[in-house]
Amino acid sequence: MAESRAACSAMTNSYTVSIHYDRRLYRHDIAGSMVHARMLARQGIIGEEDARLIVEGLSSIRDEIEGGHFPWQEELEDIHMNVESRLHELIGPPAGKLHTGRSRNDQVAVDMRMYARDVLKDACNGIAKLQRALVSQGDAHREVVMPGYTHMQRAQTVLLAHHLLAYFEMLQRDRTRMEECHRRANVLPLGSGALAGVPYPLDRDWVAAELGFDGVTANSMDAVSDRDYLLDFHAAAATCMMHMSRLSEELVLWSSSEFGFVAMAPKFSTGSSIMPQKRNPDFAEIARGKTGRVYGSLMALLTVMKGLPLTYNRDMQEDKEGFFDASDTLLATLEVMASVVSTMEVKAERMEQAASDSFMLATDLADYLVGKGMPFRQAHGVVRELCAHAHSRGLTLQQLPMQDYRGFSELFEEDVYRITPRGSAEARNVTGGTAPNQVRLALEEAKRCLGEEE
Amino acid sequence: MAESRAACSAMTNSYTVSIHYDRRLYRHDIAGSMVHARMLARQGIIGEEDARLIVEGLSSIRDEIEGGHFPWQEELEDIHMNVESRLHELIGPPAGKLHTGRSRNDQVAVDMRMYARDVLKDACNGIAKLQRALVSQGDAHREVVMPGYTHMQRAQTVLLAHHLLAYFEMLQRDRTRMEECHRRANVLPLGSGALAGVPYPLDRDWVAAELGFDGVTANSMDAVSDRDYLLDFHAAAATCMMHMSRLSEELVLWSSSEFGFVAMAPKFSTGSSIMPQKRNPDFAEIARGKTGRVYGSLMALLTVMKGLPLTYNRDMQEDKEGFFDASDTLLATLEVMASVVSTMEVKAERMEQAASDSFMLATDLADYLVGKGMPFRQAHGVVRELCAHAHSRGLTLQQLPMQDYRGFSELFEEDVYRITPRGSAEARNVTGGTAPNQVRLALEEAKRCLGEEE
Amino acid sequence: MAESRAACSAMTNSYTVSIHYDRRLYRHDIAGSMVHARMLARQGIIGEEDARLIVEGLSSIRDEIEGGHFPWQEELEDIHMNVESRLHELIGPPAGKLHTGRSRNDQVAVDMRMYARDVLKDACNGIAKLQRALVSQGDAHREVVMPGYTHMQRAQTVLLAHHLLAYFEMLQRDRTRMEECHRRANVLPLGSGALAGVPYPLDRDWVAAELGFDGVTANSMDAVSDRDYLLDFHAAAATCMMHMSRLSEELVLWSSSEFGFVAMAPKFSTGSSIMPQKRNPDFAEIARGKTGRVYGSLMALLTVMKGLPLTYNRDMQEDKEGFFDASDTLLATLEVMASVVSTMEVKAERMEQAASDSFMLATDLADYLVGKGMPFRQAHGVVRELCAHAHSRGLTLQQLPMQDYRGFSELFEEDVYRITPRGSAEARNVTGGTAPNQVRLALEEAKRCLGEEE
Amino acid sequence: MAESRAACSAMTNSYTVSIHYDRRLYRHDIAGSMVHARMLARQGIIGEEDARLIVEGLSSIRDEIEGGHFPWQEELEDIHMNVESRLHELIGPPAGKLHTGRSRNDQVAVDMRMYARDVLKDACNGIAKLQRALVSQGDAHREVVMPGYTHMQRAQTVLLAHHLLAYFEMLQRDRTRMEECHRRANVLPLGSGALAGVPYPLDRDWVAAELGFDGVTANSMDAVSDRDYLLDFHAAAATCMMHMSRLSEELVLWSSSEFGFVAMAPKFSTGSSIMPQKRNPDFAEIARGKTGRVYGSLMALLTVMKGLPLTYNRDMQEDKEGFFDASDTLLATLEVMASVVSTMEVKAERMEQAASDSFMLATDLADYLVGKGMPFRQAHGVVRELCAHAHSRGLTLQQLPMQDYRGFSELFEEDVYRITPRGSAEARNVTGGTAPNQVRLALEEAKRCLGEEE
Repeated sequence: MAESRAACSAMTNSYTVSIHYDRRLYRHDIAGSMVHARMLARQGIIGEEDARLIVEGLSSIRDEIEGGHFPWQEELEDIHMNVESRLHELIGPPAGKLHTGRSRNDQVAVDMRMYARDVLKDACNGIAKLQRALVSQGDAHREVVMPGYTHMQRAQTVLLAHHLLAYFEMLQRDRTRMEECHRRANVLPLGSGALAGVPYPLDRDWVAAELGFDGVTANSMDAVSDRDYLLDFHAAAATCMMHMSRLSEELVLWSSSEFGFVAMAPKFSTGSSIMPQKRNPDFAEIARGKTGRVYGSLMALLTVMKGLPLTYNRDMQEDKEGFFDASDTLLATLEVMASVVSTMEVKAERMEQAASDSFMLATDLADYLVGKGMPFRQAHGVVRELCAHAHSRGLTLQQLPMQDYRGFSELFEEDVYRITPRGSAEARNVTGGTAPNQVRLALEEAKRCLGEEE
Repeated sequence: MAESRAACSAMTNSYTVSIHYDRRLYRHDIAGSMVHARMLARQGIIGEEDARLIVEGLSSIRDEIEGGHFPWQEELEDIHMNVESRLHELIGPPAGKLHTGRSRNDQVAVDMRMYARDVLKDACNGIAKLQRALVSQGDAHREVVMPGYTHMQRAQTVLLAHHLLAYFEMLQRDRTRMEECHRRANVLPLGSGALAGVPYPLDRDWVAAELGFDGVTANSMDAVSDRDYLLDFHAAAATCMMHMSRLSEELVLWSSSEFGFVAMAPKFSTGSSIMPQKRNPDFAEIARGKTGRVYGSLMALLTVMKGLPLTYNRDMQEDKEGFFDASDTLLATLEVMASVVSTMEVKAERMEQAASDSFMLATDLADYLVGKGMPFRQAHGVVRELCAHAHSRGLTLQQLPMQDYRGFSELFEEDVYRITPRGSAEARNVTGGTAPNQVRLALEEAKRCLGEEE
Repeated sequence: MAESRAACSAMTNSYTVSIHYDRRLYRHDIAGSMVHARMLARQGIIGEEDARLIVEGLSSIRDEIEGGHFPWQEELEDIHMNVESRLHELIGPPAGKLHTGRSRNDQVAVDMRMYARDVLKDACNGIAKLQRALVSQGDAHREVVMPGYTHMQRAQTVLLAHHLLAYFEMLQRDRTRMEECHRRANVLPLGSGALAGVPYPLDRDWVAAELGFDGVTANSMDAVSDRDYLLDFHAAAATCMMHMSRLSEELVLWSSSEFGFVAMAPKFSTGSSIMPQKRNPDFAEIARGKTGRVYGSLMALLTVMKGLPLTYNRDMQEDKEGFFDASDTLLATLEVMASVVSTMEVKAERMEQAASDSFMLATDLADYLVGKGMPFRQAHGVVRELCAHAHSRGLTLQQLPMQDYRGFSELFEEDVYRITPRGSAEARNVTGGTAPNQVRLALEEAKRCLGEEE
Repeated sequence: MAESRAACSAMTNSYTVSIHYDRRLYRHDIAGSMVHARMLARQGIIGEEDARLIVEGLSSIRDEIEGGHFPWQEELEDIHMNVESRLHELIGPPAGKLHTGRSRNDQVAVDMRMYARDVLKDACNGIAKLQRALVSQGDAHREVVMPGYTHMQRAQTVLLAHHLLAYFEMLQRDRTRMEECHRRANVLPLGSGALAGVPYPLDRDWVAAELGFDGVTANSMDAVSDRDYLLDFHAAAATCMMHMSRLSEELVLWSSSEFGFVAMAPKFSTGSSIMPQKRNPDFAEIARGKTGRVYGSLMALLTVMKGLPLTYNRDMQEDKEGFFDASDTLLATLEVMASVVSTMEVKAERMEQAASDSFMLATDLADYLVGKGMPFRQAHGVVRELCAHAHSRGLTLQQLPMQDYRGFSELFEEDVYRITPRGSAEARNVTGGTAPNQVRLALEEAKRCLGEEE
């Protein structure tokens, strides 16, 4: 009973504590404080000597943290109080001057924006890495054809490289979204005070420039309660995870006995505790599963913010753990998928064999008839019946004798047998199409894109 | 029993039908088809005469629809089949040539992108309208001060205009997001065929230019299965609704007897069926409630897309109703909130009275002591005790005698009584702060922003 | 411009209107009102004659609605005002007495609970129907074996019926949830007034009994703001849709060329506009897609309710459309899936052929060694190497010569060749296992369960 | 560069690791293994001596873990491998026999169900604790009246106890949901093997009884891929958090200067870093914010499960962290809210003062007229105009002279002045109403309910 009461009390006490997750902000917190102190001195708000002591003290604290001998105190609840309290121990009263013209609200806001910038840059790099893996596999198997699917039904022949480049395009949009998010994040909130601005002649522009921000926020009440850039990130991350869940789904299917299009590298698959023969595509599965986690964090933050009156409310503290989890998840998944894709074994012969399924040439037959003057809708109907006929005779379209063809239309001639899977792909020679020369151009363009970032 | 079997069958039959909601795409569908037909003729793929007949037939169909005498057929399931079937009735066999070099997949994709472009423009206009209402109310009450809140506690004095401009900033970001989404939506997918491109020498760039697209999609498999621009819209709409839910929450609170800061216009409040004295802020409440609906549509589309293999899967048909519902909801809510804000009565005297709560000047007292040389953290402690003392004596800070002040610090002098709510606001004279001249600049900047769009 | 202003105004006016979706509550609204009027008379609160007129008037209104000649008025906004206004036209002043001791809040609450009860019963019936389809297909193919999968890899042989019965179990839980939800929904809120109860001697228990409720709500403030039973339904519906999304995913995969385990009935698959040979499993795909929609409605209602102070807030009006949409979707999907399952063609030979993949017998080999005394973990290791060896020699386990076996363990003897797919299934003869006699018992139990409801 | 490659590799390696969060399953994992080993011996599948060694070894491992000297190895990835590996070290080869007739899939399944049972019991206790706090505050302030609100507008007088008991009812439903979830969770999956059952004569019923389960699962494929009970928990937790978010919202509002109905205990409010006078209701705010987190976990798990084919897929590993986070959050929030409610100071005089707002008596005036024979709708109209008149004269309803009353209806007489806030509450003497004797009965019933659990 006494024990359970103690447990309760512990639970209650820890409810507001954030130090276990916000300590990762230490570098940004210290950097922001150093620049703030220097600016206060530049503006004559505090003395040069005080500023010097503060900057040196903060520098020592950073060293202590990175050296692993900082005296963390959970009862101080968060990273900011831990640093502040330690600074007092190290330099005494001048530490108190650091908080001149600054509130906890705008201090936290600036830390998070600096941290988010780093995440956004890492995300862009991670995306590029996965793009490179896709381009590299496409490049290495330029000639390989495979079935393209709609409704999970074999539809038309495509190049494997074309298929992989579809993901390149998705990721390209993901990268753009991260960049847009970066633009919105990279504005300095410091100087907003608790909510109304501060009664000191701060030089916000100088601070912004020193800390690498593109500008300063325009309204103090908005600045302390804005979490848009985190929502932007969550939405972008959710979409990027969705793209990777589609890729993962395909890799899982392609790894099955039924498809057999790829084999995951041993490092990225695992055995079974009970079924010794199995190679499970666990990494692709977990990546697909982690999509839920990022969707969940997006929904969590949207819920937190819904209906909150201005300005800061403590509910907003909940913005951090979800963001850290979502960003860690995204970065790790990008990393994992890049490795999975670049190490997987492509089973070209299985793909080619599947691509030889003659019924995928049906559209080409219809286009053949169109080329001979039949309206498309009519040609479509003729070919549908022709396929049904071949299917009932147990023949492929190539095996079907000419007289059967001509039974459906007089327009069929011997050249109909020249329609092949590869020919089908070659014919789709339009921008964005799967014709080999289009795919070659697309690979080059993709490499050019990636090269620009390097 | 027979009846219930018929009901079942009806339910099953209607499961794949979309004509009740996708008929709103008719204008875009017809416009896209017209340009496709003209291009086919320009490229010599179909005859000029056929193209002319097709364009004229489509023109008649558009007239029929807009005139309300188009013979809709539910059994044809969607807008595309309705138009196509009618075209056959009107012009006969040449109608079949319209589908040369085009699949249902890229046809639907182009229709939706054109429709989405319209929605995005309307959203930008709707956002601007609400921004104008906020600026206008701020402008009309430039002098009014009110309490600024954190944690729903009165914290520091702010100008009403400053508070309203916080929402201007949020909406400004919303507008930027809509513009970014427009850039991603405005790319022509036509020419992607079912998934692999088409075996006809289409002029995709010409079609793009004619239909007002900025360019063409780069990968056919991506083009038919990309719903990113819809996700972008949903995420942007969810954030915008979240902003309006915050504004709505404040308007609901401000309309209460306890706050009494505003009165909703009679047109935007309703009475009670049982309590005759009430004026309920129903419009603000519904706006807040509809936030859930848009969050839900975002989650729905993310779920639909999760784990779908390439390329088109029929699941994606579910993209439309949610998008139509979310966009209708967003546009209506922007409209409603603009009207609610511009017609509400601001009760300036109640705001001013609340702003005179002397304890909100505590920060200013602390800053006063800092100005006389005391470190901020120490000043903060002194003022906290001073406030507790005044509170226990039942006095405001202005009523507290000088000897009481000096009991807490020798630095207090007579000028401490010159600290007032308005003075507090005036002191926050930093970019983004609530000082009247800063707010005046912000109002001017806001108007400049809005003027650029007009 | 004038036009656009008119459009705005229309948008604003329609923002609070619900008649287009809440008219489906007419039967429940009228039934509730009739019983309320009769109770008022029984308690002497209104006269018998007034009650008679009210009941007759309401009866006429119900006939008008069902006969399709009720004069709906959109400007009256909702079903309740439409009925009330019409009642006034029909019977004059006595109509005004119907609202004695009743508010709009508890009136709407009772209508929704009555409507929800109907939905819950329909859901139970719909679930049972899908269960019957699964049991029936299982029963019709009792002998068919197929691969059981983990990680989408063939793992162990199972009976098709066993696989289908897994869904029976999921649906059984879904049904239980619907019943639990029914219990929570089936409590009468009438008598709660606007929020505080009513100052009339109502007989709530009598009303409850007449309307088929199990009891009356215990707290008026809770009663008018409780939406738990709708959340319960949404959560139950989301889980049920999730189950069907898994079944749909499998049907889509099984319909592919690669699996070829089933063929959708022509009525439940569609052709392609451009690829004549295809049979797309559209109904299963749409069912899978509609999962998103129900997830979205759940999230929407959770968002609406988050952080709402007591008691009724107009936000709650948003409970209805989502509920109607989610329940319509669930009921239609259950119906569709029952039809899809009962009409699909099982390709038993393809399943059997896939089940003959010898590597799926690896676990059985390990169990064989355990039976001869080897610890399981060691046996597992031996078999893993044996499989790798057979794979590298290009042989199945059955083709591998005895000397190869004995190279891995002296415990292997000739009887190792008696391990077969069917034998593997037969060996799993434990409650819940796939052994044919276990599956037979499970089929019987399932039919017994379903029979109880008929 | 080398460093970044190492970082990548670390990220990739840790992607599948779960030991940092699943180690909390150790007690359940060990208990399940002990009973499994004993059953294997009872059935003669392994020797008695082997079973004894296994049980002793597991017992030592449990002691090591609880004593804090267990040699955890991250490279062994999860709790199960850590225990298994250590068992091998302690007892050698017999350790390998523990996995006879058991797979990792059904082992994890049984661990999680046992853990979930504990959570569900804790949740029931936590809910009861919060209910007790509400009842206790209601009991301590039985006479206090306050305004009841709809649309955040003062509507009718209610007792504070009545208001608090509305939350009691919500929580009572939450408790029922947890119990229902417990019933679904409490079924033994062991014996399902990897997916198909096991080829050993296990005694599943004996294991179920030993481990406290109500029965055994009926289908092995369902058993290893069922996460319904976790979804049930998430849905129940989300609804419970929603209820607490409503309570939190009210506590935050009631703590504001504008309402002033309660004061949070110092322990459950915090000061401001910059505004010394403030007492922020942080605990209630965080509780409200954490609602988003639980909603997010629900959405995450629904997403993970959507469209997964049978049976186990590695995606499902993602079920754990979300569940641990959601359950920790729920339990802590229940604990915190119980403390917040039981320690808050009720400012009865401020509530009473607000309740004296005469316009809240409008409904009572209408009921007064009804009592004198006027139809309700007409009475409602009369009182609406009367209120407007009083408001325009700046008078309360009590101050309005009789001649003004009679100007609106001849039915008004002197006794109209006897309508008072308390009288209004007393009049609502119907089951569930706010009349003091009804509330007294409700408090008694609530205590009876809670007593049954103690």
